[in-house]
Amino acid sequence: MSSISPTLIARYGANSAPTQAALTPLIEQLLSHRSVRAYLPDPVGDAQLAAIIAAAQSAASSSNLNVWSVVAVRDADRRARLAELAGGQAHVREAPLQLVWLADLARLRRIAGQLERPSAGLDYTEMFLTGVIDAALAAQNAAAAAESLGLGMVYIGGMRNHPEEVAALLELPPEVFAVFGMCVGTPDPARPAEIKPRPPQSVVLHHERYRQDIQDDGIEAYNRAMAGFYAEQGMNVHGTWAVHSAKRIAGPESLSGRDRLVEALHALGFKLR
Amino acid sequence: MSSISPTLIARYGANSAPTQAALTPLIEQLLSHRSVRAYLPDPVGDAQLAAIIAAAQSAASSSNLNVWSVVAVRDADRRARLAELAGGQAHVREAPLQLVWLADLARLRRIAGQLERPSAGLDYTEMFLTGVIDAALAAQNAAAAAESLGLGMVYIGGMRNHPEEVAALLELPPEVFAVFGMCVGTPDPARPAEIKPRPPQSVVLHHERYRQDIQDDGIEAYNRAMAGFYAEQGMNVHGTWAVHSAKRIAGPESLSGRDRLVEALHALGFKLR
Repeated sequence: MSSISPTLIARYGANSAPTQAALTPLIEQLLSHRSVRAYLPDPVGDAQLAAIIAAAQSAASSSNLNVWSVVAVRDADRRARLAELAGGQAHVREAPLQLVWLADLARLRRIAGQLERPSAGLDYTEMFLTGVIDAALAAQNAAAAAESLGLGMVYIGGMRNHPEEVAALLELPPEVFAVFGMCVGTPDPARPAEIKPRPPQSVVLHHERYRQDIQDDGIEAYNRAMAGFYAEQGMNVHGTWAVHSAKRIAGPESLSGRDRLVEALHALGFKLR
Repeated sequence: MSSISPTLIARYGANSAPTQAALTPLIEQLLSHRSVRAYLPDPVGDAQLAAIIAAAQSAASSSNLNVWSVVAVRDADRRARLAELAGGQAHVREAPLQLVWLADLARLRRIAGQLERPSAGLDYTEMFLTGVIDAALAAQNAAAAAESLGLGMVYIGGMRNHPEEVAALLELPPEVFAVFGMCVGTPDPARPAEIKPRPPQSVVLHHERYRQDIQDDGIEAYNRAMAGFYAEQGMNVHGTWAVHSAKRIAGPESLSGRDRLVEALHALGFKLR
């Protein structure tokens, strides 16, 4: 390749972008992802939603168990309530569609019951994790699908701030957990989002075996790249990416209530053996 | 749309495919996903790997913490050992590249230590879950990227059958967990894979609130679609999808050793508070 793709440079910065990368139009689109937090009110149509969900269902599912579901929330009052529960995020209220992705063990529990078969395997943390993974794989396909339709999206991890309240609002049965939300809608061109740099590949990609020491140079380079990004965006950010990240994991008080996740999961009926 | 896309019909069967779906070339490709378990020996090149990892890194990461990593295993002996650990899956040995996707809390633990800052937030199940989700979102982008390059892939959940042994083989530090593997390589045209049907959208997609009762018709339709798929593939399968799925979650003995996941995670240094 004679020149590096502009999206690769946006993703890594000029100094850290891989010089040889076999890009396809699909990969270029994935590289262009940005988290959209400003939406126009235009609705997401049923044909768009059907395509997004078909993409989601086309992701792999562990043993084809399909232990996930999704709730599409368009009602403005319910979106406003979800926005509050997710920590007062205005874009959850603003986006015309909120997709709440669920780890869903209830479906198989019910099916096994109807067949009068045992389902004690669902009592294990492994199956909860399978539901989370299934939901995440499906959601990421949905994200790519939505973006290919010209829509914008952003994940809402804040859906885990108050799991029981979210479950009550969406009438989730026991053993169904809202893993995260996802705003979907038309990006407001007056408030554009930017591609955020990621660490150099040397930080996350290991060959044959994991190595800690080789990550340090890349992390330093990433601190510099993020400092440049904050400056470009006119963001008044103090401290490096490393310092920010350390603050975010400092202790239970920095987890926005999610330090009580295990308690919440038990309250939602998960055994987590 | 005047006619339903053939990939939509392959994905749902003729009777359950959504009649109105706003498809894009990217969505069509996601719909065409199939799990490839037969590979040619041709290597996956560095430029392909760089593009796959760039796509993976372009997925969202919770609070941009990037709490995931991936080990690319090309060494034949190591692939053979991973194949054994994953339950003797021949395609793990056969595929030229195995990507092992990691929930990685070690990087932030180390960064916080270097900065002499507390990192007790990492002790919580929430942060483990964040690592799993980050890894899954990244992996699904990698899957789509690989397929867009003409490569095939399949997820290897069996990487969770023996977490400590996988960690030892890949020299993972404490608080790093192999969430799943992923075979990547050129599909063997002599042993083609097929698109597997998924449940009708009415089973997984809910509007405004979750409902259990409305899923039953779709599950019946899915049992019929899967029976047709087994017959077409010449697979001698007894019982419906529902029966198969119930067997898979019958009890701890049906989890291939993953009933001890919590014990394994503790052994790997996760606190899971």
